[in-house]
Amino acid sequence: MLFTTWNEPPLFFAFFPANNSYPSILGDLLSSGLGVNGMLWATSPAATEVETHVMDWLVEMMGLPEAFRSTSTGGGVIQDTASSASLVALIAARERATGGRSNAAGVEGGRLVAYTSTQAHSSIEKDARIAGIGSDNLRAVEVDAAFAMRPERLAELIAADKAAGRVPFCVCATVGTTSADGVDPVAEIGKICREHGIWLHVDAAMAGTAALCPEFRWVTDGFEYADSYVFNPHKWMMTNFDCSAFFVRDRRSLISALSIVPEYLRNTASDAGTVIDYRDWQIPLGRRFRALKLWFVIRAYGVSGLQDVVRRHVALAREFASWVEADADFEVANRVPLSLVCFRHKGGDAVNQAILDGANASGRMYLTHTRIDDRLTLRLSIGNQRTQREHVEAAWATVREMAAKAAYSE
Amino acid sequence: MLFTTWNEPPLFFAFFPANNSYPSILGDLLSSGLGVNGMLWATSPAATEVETHVMDWLVEMMGLPEAFRSTSTGGGVIQDTASSASLVALIAARERATGGRSNAAGVEGGRLVAYTSTQAHSSIEKDARIAGIGSDNLRAVEVDAAFAMRPERLAELIAADKAAGRVPFCVCATVGTTSADGVDPVAEIGKICREHGIWLHVDAAMAGTAALCPEFRWVTDGFEYADSYVFNPHKWMMTNFDCSAFFVRDRRSLISALSIVPEYLRNTASDAGTVIDYRDWQIPLGRRFRALKLWFVIRAYGVSGLQDVVRRHVALAREFASWVEADADFEVANRVPLSLVCFRHKGGDAVNQAILDGANASGRMYLTHTRIDDRLTLRLSIGNQRTQREHVEAAWATVREMAAKAAYSE
Repeated sequence: MLFTTWNEPPLFFAFFPANNSYPSILGDLLSSGLGVNGMLWATSPAATEVETHVMDWLVEMMGLPEAFRSTSTGGGVIQDTASSASLVALIAARERATGGRSNAAGVEGGRLVAYTSTQAHSSIEKDARIAGIGSDNLRAVEVDAAFAMRPERLAELIAADKAAGRVPFCVCATVGTTSADGVDPVAEIGKICREHGIWLHVDAAMAGTAALCPEFRWVTDGFEYADSYVFNPHKWMMTNFDCSAFFVRDRRSLISALSIVPEYLRNTASDAGTVIDYRDWQIPLGRRFRALKLWFVIRAYGVSGLQDVVRRHVALAREFASWVEADADFEVANRVPLSLVCFRHKGGDAVNQAILDGANASGRMYLTHTRIDDRLTLRLSIGNQRTQREHVEAAWATVREMAAKAAYSE
Repeated sequence: MLFTTWNEPPLFFAFFPANNSYPSILGDLLSSGLGVNGMLWATSPAATEVETHVMDWLVEMMGLPEAFRSTSTGGGVIQDTASSASLVALIAARERATGGRSNAAGVEGGRLVAYTSTQAHSSIEKDARIAGIGSDNLRAVEVDAAFAMRPERLAELIAADKAAGRVPFCVCATVGTTSADGVDPVAEIGKICREHGIWLHVDAAMAGTAALCPEFRWVTDGFEYADSYVFNPHKWMMTNFDCSAFFVRDRRSLISALSIVPEYLRNTASDAGTVIDYRDWQIPLGRRFRALKLWFVIRAYGVSGLQDVVRRHVALAREFASWVEADADFEVANRVPLSLVCFRHKGGDAVNQAILDGANASGRMYLTHTRIDDRLTLRLSIGNQRTQREHVEAAWATVREMAAKAAYSE
């Protein structure tokens, strides 16, 4: 039996949380009912202005760089997913590096090179394929023991590519991956990028929300070097899918990479250059009024309400990890900086597979897995707003029960 | 004053209709509330199975080729927009033409060539840029007097490109553009594509819904030659944004172009190859349960209810066109095969601009424009389900009033 209701009951610990909340659902309902299309400022000034406003709020709420504000050189935009946001970043980087020539003449395959870590999300590789860069030209930089990209290794790869006549154009760093921790040292990576004129994109899809709390603001360390940044309010910020928050330092480089203006979309406001047309900040043309749900969430919870949720989840994850550590048969496989615990039974892959299958077949919880150091590792991701201590206790009891069954059947 | 509420009151005649309806809004509300993520079959079997089922219904309801059914070689998937669907088609075509080499090695810019008509939507050019093909390598094929792509001209361009050592890989045909009519002769274009092994993608974003009615099924003529097809239920089929219906003839070529399987997304069902993972049919990873709103709409209206809406709008457009034709100062600039009327005052661009600005500033209606034969032309797009004859009459009265004002001020 598969247990795939992501929000009900609060025993979904698989993948990542896909939160919603009553304010978010009502905001989304309003968006469905209004049915406006915010592709241009002129097609829905309200959808555009509210989005700009809410994205500026996020900059303030999370202590993000001032350059990400619409009143500075950059700005924020809501994308459907981090995959799409990273693709947008890759295109902007590609066009900046080629002076817009790739958009016109096509990509010169094998010449442009991008970098990410071995622990990065698969979407980066998919984006490199879509953008015509090719996965052969995406370098997977080795990580350290904490699964973070090794800056000195990045520098070596860039130097080798330059020596071979290739053009390093983009680095995708990650803060808190879904597989383990992987908190890349963004500042060190950023200095290397600046030195070589390379676009730095940072993906903190899940971890980004933690920046609401000053004590977790290490997740945004080094962001002053980032050209673009994405995190997903639809993961851990009580806003239902889809809602990825994407920021750029220099909106001109984004717009020049993605803008096309046919006659039937021309209008006085756009021609005057005084408004934002979010169509030019994304892949599709059309767009929902997604800012409403984010606005409702922020106004309903307030910053302190959202902080409470994050703090409670992190505390629960740390408590779960302490139980795992206290059991001689189990071990924790990541540092648990936030709300994801990677752990495994010491009995090897077969036992962990039996625990995974047994727990999921029980219908009482849903876990997923990853491989760390080539060993099957279980992932417990805490993030549903209604998940309480009793649910985490029940999850741990189920895991132990399945481990006992696996031992008995051997 | 800008009049940008796309659904209320029913005097929005700009761009294209962005319909919603109570069943659709409730389906979307349910999707927001469930908050499931249907990226894999295993992450939400219901979201996947319902989507497959509803897309198969559309094939039946609209008389689409049997190959588009999930039970045949192809299948359907809901995308956010036609822009994204066309990008997906372009990537699949690119990979089929290069044997998957572009995904690995990157695009060889200038070698791959795509074709569309001069009247096609700007998204095709944007997609060509994103996919690394380059807009220089997208040929704009000339159209005939009815704004349809000229097949003989397409054949000439393909022959010239092949003679020059380039690789024609994709043709994007359109059925009923947003600017005029532009009903491309898909069968003739398809024969040329088959002869050269070129992928044929057909975009009927707005017009596609008309295929619900047997008497308008000329919109799907020649679709037996199409490798992929997209239309937008979120335009004219009472389903709120975002809901683009995308079909492919050979799902394997799509999946092989877009599939990436990291360890943390592996699961028994996917490995067995017996289920659909819609992640591999689109650009992003995550996805909403969008099939719910389409399911609700189809079940609530029924095929005959949806047919009634289409027929009523077409009749209103034809009636409006007859009023324009009967006025010696005005002329109709397209054939009005469905619900879009392109028309203009015979007094020239300045008068038409004054009518456009005056009508929109009145707050009583919202019109947009295009250029046909390099002349400013007004577009009246009828498609809101609550638009009645009295609203169309009022729109015509407003247009005439603004024309009279313009004449007086000269």
